Amino acid sequence: MHNHLSACEASRAIAAGELTAEALAAACLERVREREAAVQAWAFIDPEAALKQARALDRQPRRSRLHGIPVGIKDVIDTHDMPTEYGSKIYEGHQPGCDAACVAQIRELGGLILGKAVSTEFATRHPNKTRHPLNPERSPGGSSSGSAAAVADFMVPIALGTQTSSSVIRPAAYCGVVGYKPSFGMINRAGLKFLSESLDTIGSLTRSIPDAALLVEELAGLPPTSFDDIGGLKPRIGFCRTPWWDEADDASKANLEQAARTLRAAGTRVTDVELDEPFAELNDIQVEVSSYEFYRALTFERTRHPELISPHLLRRIAAGGSITRERYEAGVAAARECRKRIADVFREFDVLLAPSAPGEATTIDSTGEPTFGLMWTLLRLPCLTLPHGSGPAGLPLGIQLIASFGRDAVLFRYAEWVARTLDRR
Amino acid sequence: MHNHLSACEASRAIAAGELTAEALAAACLERVREREAAVQAWAFIDPEAALKQARALDRQPRRSRLHGIPVGIKDVIDTHDMPTEYGSKIYEGHQPGCDAACVAQIRELGGLILGKAVSTEFATRHPNKTRHPLNPERSPGGSSSGSAAAVADFMVPIALGTQTSSSVIRPAAYCGVVGYKPSFGMINRAGLKFLSESLDTIGSLTRSIPDAALLVEELAGLPPTSFDDIGGLKPRIGFCRTPWWDEADDASKANLEQAARTLRAAGTRVTDVELDEPFAELNDIQVEVSSYEFYRALTFERTRHPELISPHLLRRIAAGGSITRERYEAGVAAARECRKRIADVFREFDVLLAPSAPGEATTIDSTGEPTFGLMWTLLRLPCLTLPHGSGPAGLPLGIQLIASFGRDAVLFRYAEWVARTLDRR
Repeated sequence: MHNHLSACEASRAIAAGELTAEALAAACLERVREREAAVQAWAFIDPEAALKQARALDRQPRRSRLHGIPVGIKDVIDTHDMPTEYGSKIYEGHQPGCDAACVAQIRELGGLILGKAVSTEFATRHPNKTRHPLNPERSPGGSSSGSAAAVADFMVPIALGTQTSSSVIRPAAYCGVVGYKPSFGMINRAGLKFLSESLDTIGSLTRSIPDAALLVEELAGLPPTSFDDIGGLKPRIGFCRTPWWDEADDASKANLEQAARTLRAAGTRVTDVELDEPFAELNDIQVEVSSYEFYRALTFERTRHPELISPHLLRRIAAGGSITRERYEAGVAAARECRKRIADVFREFDVLLAPSAPGEATTIDSTGEPTFGLMWTLLRLPCLTLPHGSGPAGLPLGIQLIASFGRDAVLFRYAEWVARTLDRR
Repeated sequence: MHNHLSACEASRAIAAGELTAEALAAACLERVREREAAVQAWAFIDPEAALKQARALDRQPRRSRLHGIPVGIKDVIDTHDMPTEYGSKIYEGHQPGCDAACVAQIRELGGLILGKAVSTEFATRHPNKTRHPLNPERSPGGSSSGSAAAVADFMVPIALGTQTSSSVIRPAAYCGVVGYKPSFGMINRAGLKFLSESLDTIGSLTRSIPDAALLVEELAGLPPTSFDDIGGLKPRIGFCRTPWWDEADDASKANLEQAARTLRAAGTRVTDVELDEPFAELNDIQVEVSSYEFYRALTFERTRHPELISPHLLRRIAAGGSITRERYEAGVAAARECRKRIADVFREFDVLLAPSAPGEATTIDSTGEPTFGLMWTLLRLPCLTLPHGSGPAGLPLGIQLIASFGRDAVLFRYAEWVARTLDRR
């Protein structure tokens, strides 16, 4: 069951000579073989090529903690040796000429590119083929649908996702895994198909918080986060229901309230945080800012191949065409102002605790609502969802933690403390 | 001599039925035919295909002020129907699958994509084949070498360039044309080959300031700038020699001092501006921040094809690999702090006047020094160089004007006032 190992566990076993990259890749590929028909997490996967990569890595000296670790790549990120279809019929069979920066970095670090994980259409909301691993009538969430499902289903320990609205956090919460959206600017975006360049952020789906840390540390050149000494932490937690609290269902609200009580009972400070008036506008502003950018970023597609774009996305794009530059700039300015205000909030708190999604996984006709990701993405803050509790259909729920800009390492440590504290209860 | 028309003049003539897109394209192509062997401004140009585009546009209703206007595209910007080689041997014959956002927008607006203008290697400093239109032993500057030379030589009225350091401003100054780098975030970058994603900015090379305004207004959805009423302007001009003044040669210094005197004599306020201590660090910081990003953005190229990268760029990339994330973030934070400080400077001034380049065009073994572009690019401010004066070899000099963030329209109006005032002298 090597495919059940976390990336950190597998990395240690490979370093110790107890596990080969080939055996790990073979276990992941065996899981894919068994489960792919049901889950449909992959846009492209070539088992033979993956095993060949693994054997080559086994012959090489270890290059980093990622050496030999299989990674799934969301199919909006270019690969020079695998088709990249951006979740769109327009790009069927499209083969980029080079790897995205993050893909080439993973290869340089000895990571193994296992395959391309399904994305919704251009990483927007129109569902693609992936099903929830625990229930085929449910959505894995989106837009990083395949990344979340593949990691949740033990097909791969790490997958790259991207988030413009809530496209890492929501599918991670739905699938019961850890979703991490870094501070804006953490992982290089060269070779990412842009949708909204001021918001698009590459992040990860993993089954543990240290795995999320491992990946971003290697890609951005951050020092490794220590998790050994977190037992004594007493994070100052701000419980931020957000202005959209009423859009969460009862199970999600109760789950988050219970988490807050448990954390408080563990002796840490958990204080309610009310964000003031301007923050209540941020979800609408996120939609306007991103739509203005969609309209421009997808000009080739909307002018040449509108018949191959889903009606939902076409409407969203068209709406972007009517947003004036003045309105766009007003939105950008309001977001900038709120970034200053939230920095003040973080003087009192180490992390904020907030909903990850309005509820458990929706039915497959939708990928769910991005409600609880929009504001944090617009604020460019590092966010992480971890699985906690379950909904009325028995599917996973998540809770979201947010840290101040650039303090991703702080986020990892406190999130791990929260995860362990909730697990102990 | 239709190819001598500005974009605004040609646009008015086309709208009035006095000029066809075909006649305009034919005149530009004729100039290319005569001059390309000497200037070598184009990485790719297909005269027949351009004329076919022009004839198709002549049959269509006018879509915007860009209708029928030929535009050159720097070859680091993707085109679906023309090869895009990023100025690198690695990408010989590379054919992208789609147009960059700005290219598709120009087509949608009725603009004519005349061809791909030569870029230096990945828009860095290593010279490519283009020669200065006025002297084949001199450099057109870089990295937007072909864009500047083609516009200066009347092959095309507008070309897109990109700037990470000084890659629009310097070649424009060398070639004696108007170079405009917008505020960061003005022209959508989807489909631009990234070098340094926090700095790379798409801008324009034109022979007039209203042409620069026309292009960005159409692409970003800005209202048209009025130039009719600028006679009465009295811009408050800050004469900013910058901390690198001593790196400008005597002719450039004298030229800028004389421009300042002429403007003062015209009755406007021209006051010296000394930027305080932290600004003196910004050129070094720009190099560190961009190098950290180069190293990541070009991972595929540096790991797979190092033998096809110039020694200079390889060294620059390698230096980027040794910059820690901590150092990078310190640089980003210092830049952010200076953005606040410069906003205060702009309470007293409408525009700053600064050098465009250290001198006139260098010899062809180099594309010159980016000294006078680095800080302004890092500060994300809109910058414009306009031709004024000449150097010891009789080649053009430029003067640079800078406005506060997002005030590109202000920059155009004051720059046009400055241009007319200096012309009148």
